[in-house]
Amino acid sequence: MDCKSALSECDGDLRKAVDCLRKKGIATAKKRSGRATSQGQVQSYVHSGGKIGVLVEVNCETDFTGKTEDFTNFTRDLAMQIAASNPLAIDRDRIPADIIVKEKEIYGTQARETGKPDKVIEKIVEGKMKKFYAEACLLEQPFVKNPDISVQDLVNELMAKTGENVIIRRFARFQLGEEDA
Amino acid sequence: MDCKSALSECDGDLRKAVDCLRKKGIATAKKRSGRATSQGQVQSYVHSGGKIGVLVEVNCETDFTGKTEDFTNFTRDLAMQIAASNPLAIDRDRIPADIIVKEKEIYGTQARETGKPDKVIEKIVEGKMKKFYAEACLLEQPFVKNPDISVQDLVNELMAKTGENVIIRRFARFQLGEEDA
Repeated sequence: MDCKSALSECDGDLRKAVDCLRKKGIATAKKRSGRATSQGQVQSYVHSGGKIGVLVEVNCETDFTGKTEDFTNFTRDLAMQIAASNPLAIDRDRIPADIIVKEKEIYGTQARETGKPDKVIEKIVEGKMKKFYAEACLLEQPFVKNPDISVQDLVNELMAKTGENVIIRRFARFQLGEEDA
Repeated sequence: MDCKSALSECDGDLRKAVDCLRKKGIATAKKRSGRATSQGQVQSYVHSGGKIGVLVEVNCETDFTGKTEDFTNFTRDLAMQIAASNPLAIDRDRIPADIIVKEKEIYGTQARETGKPDKVIEKIVEGKMKKFYAEACLLEQPFVKNPDISVQDLVNELMAKTGENVIIRRFARFQLGEEDA
C-alpha cells in the first residue's frame, strides 16, 4: 500500500518513489526513536581464527521483532561491521572527552604549522574532526557491505521495516594481544 | 614418559599416579605463570536465542598452541561457563573495591544482628566473603561441566597439557535488557 501511494505521489517515477519511501521510513524512524526498547538480540562474530571477536546488543520493542530474520541479519552485519571497522564508540557522545581533546590538539598543531590564518586553521580542524568522527563512531561509519549508506541509515531502514524503535545498545571488540584501551 | 615415571614413583598405584601427575602439572603451571603471553584465541558464545552473549580472550605463548583442539575446547567451555555462572571479574583483584566494601557491610550488619561477640562476627563475615568470591570470581567458580574442580584447576590442566603459560585475559558478558553495570 505504501508503495502504491508513493508511486502515485511521484507520478509513477520508480526512483523518486523509492526515495520518497526511504524519506518516509526515516521520518517514521525519528518518531519512533523515543520509544522504550528492552527486547532484541545479543549477537557475536569471531573473525579469522579467533584473532578478533565482537559482541553486540541491539534492542527493539518486542520479542517478536527481535527474533525475525531481518533483525538477525542486521545484528550479524553489525557485528561484522564492528570487527572490520573497529569503531571507538557508538556515537559522538560516547567518545571519551580526553580522546576528543587530544585529536583536536594534534590537528590544531598540524594546521598551525602551515602558517595559515586562524579562521582557515579552524576550518581545517573542523574538517579533520568530521573525518575522525566518521571513522570512530559506529553510527557514522560507512556500512562495509554497502559504503553508500552509513550504519545509521541501516538502523533507520530496519526501523522502517519493523515499525519499531531500534537501538544499538553496546558492543565489545577484542583483538588478540592488543593493549588495553 | 611422565605417566610411566609417575606410575613407578607411586608403586604402580594408578590413582596415586594420576594425583601425582596433576600435582606435577600444577607445580609446572606455577613455574609457567610468569611467562609472556600474546597469542591465543578470542572465543564467543551466544546462549538461548540471543538473550545472553559472551566474548572471552585467552592468551598463551605460541600461535601453534592457540590453534590446538585442546585450547579451542577450553575457550569454548570458558565462554559457556561465563554465560551460565555470570562472574563479576576474573579474580579478586579485579572486583571493584566499592563492591567489596558494600558486601562486607551487608554481611557485617546481618552478623551483628545475631548479637554474637565481635570475634565470631568477624569469622562469619570472612566465611560469607569467601562464598561471595567463589561466586563472583571466574577463576574460583566451580567448573559447570565438572563442579569438582574450579576454573583455576581447568586453567592449570591446560597449562600442564600445553606446556605453556595460559592467561584468561578479559571477558564481556551481555544479557539482553539488563541494567548497565
